[in-house]
Amino acid sequence: MARIAVIGGTGALGRGLARRLIGAGHEVTIGSRSPEKARATATELDAAGSASVADAAEGKDVVIVAVPHASQQETLALIRDRVGHAVVVDTTVPLVPPKVMRVKLPAEGSAALQARAHLGPDVRLVTAFHNVSAHHLASDHAIDCDVLVFSDDVEARGIVADLCPGMGIRALSGGALANSAAAEALTSILIYMNRTYKADGAGIRFTNLSEAPGIP
Amino acid sequence: MARIAVIGGTGALGRGLARRLIGAGHEVTIGSRSPEKARATATELDAAGSASVADAAEGKDVVIVAVPHASQQETLALIRDRVGHAVVVDTTVPLVPPKVMRVKLPAEGSAALQARAHLGPDVRLVTAFHNVSAHHLASDHAIDCDVLVFSDDVEARGIVADLCPGMGIRALSGGALANSAAAEALTSILIYMNRTYKADGAGIRFTNLSEAPGIP
Repeated sequence: MARIAVIGGTGALGRGLARRLIGAGHEVTIGSRSPEKARATATELDAAGSASVADAAEGKDVVIVAVPHASQQETLALIRDRVGHAVVVDTTVPLVPPKVMRVKLPAEGSAALQARAHLGPDVRLVTAFHNVSAHHLASDHAIDCDVLVFSDDVEARGIVADLCPGMGIRALSGGALANSAAAEALTSILIYMNRTYKADGAGIRFTNLSEAPGIP
Repeated sequence: MARIAVIGGTGALGRGLARRLIGAGHEVTIGSRSPEKARATATELDAAGSASVADAAEGKDVVIVAVPHASQQETLALIRDRVGHAVVVDTTVPLVPPKVMRVKLPAEGSAALQARAHLGPDVRLVTAFHNVSAHHLASDHAIDCDVLVFSDDVEARGIVADLCPGMGIRALSGGALANSAAAEALTSILIYMNRTYKADGAGIRFTNLSEAPGIP
């Protein structure tokens, strides 16, 4: 079992991820800018504890960052000197409110490459969980959406992918960190489909794979 | 039944699309820079005819462009003054050989927005068929991959989506033309998955939709 921080663990995505990780038996710390909210969420989910953003990031195996794009840079600056050898999992989707159904990737190419710039070259960085609906994470069923995991650090990518089956999620490697752009862009399409096709948390599945790991 | 040109109809994707459209009963013209190749493919597929790129684009309801990214600009320049009110379907994926498994979208954001610039504001433009494997198009089975159709012209998007069920393909609207970036980026992921997961032409399916049109 891993020691995991979920920063932004009081938001819909962070809470959903924390809940599934706790259900899988991991030791989860809820991190938030608001100590009261972090404490309340930790109590509600029966998490191992709560902490400030910077403190939550210390002494962990995995640090998941689930904050809005507007808070990404500030959050990563708070943790970059605290995470040590932990794998940082950035979940950021670069939505541009109010036009969240329109793909508008940042000039750097992706929020993943922005995260790399904010964290510097030495932090172990993975991106994942861009496409999974918080609504489904809050349920108990296996999730009908593949999670793409991106990193230039193959070992780190495997560590994150290995967390997924216990969460009821199939993880697939999406390759290099730069490829995160595909999953980030897809999120706007999924939001669009939720409205256009009255979807109950639209997701994606990859087909015709003959060797897929981590099928829940 | 529609009058359709498939430009680049001698390549793997173009030939596969032409074959399925002919099977659905449409009047298909194969367009190519090489008159001999166009003629040979038209004969082989029992198409209605063959023509040069510019001539193929004239007098059609739908003009599909299936050429490599490196030939996109030249091809669109040849047809822009010939297509009239036809719907142009650009299938271009901005792969950067030899690193085709790495997402590298153009500075404009997508090949779709490049196509818009090349065609000018008055041509009816749709993008589609980015993710469907030529290998599967060459078979007779229903295709286990959704096709995303993008356009700022809702009527044009519908015309292209309506072609798909007859081809054994489920089409879904992906929204605005700018959203094409998502499908274009996904193609690199699918190529990566073909290698990583020994996939037989990896595809994608959207899940949890409650009102999905065009299911084959």
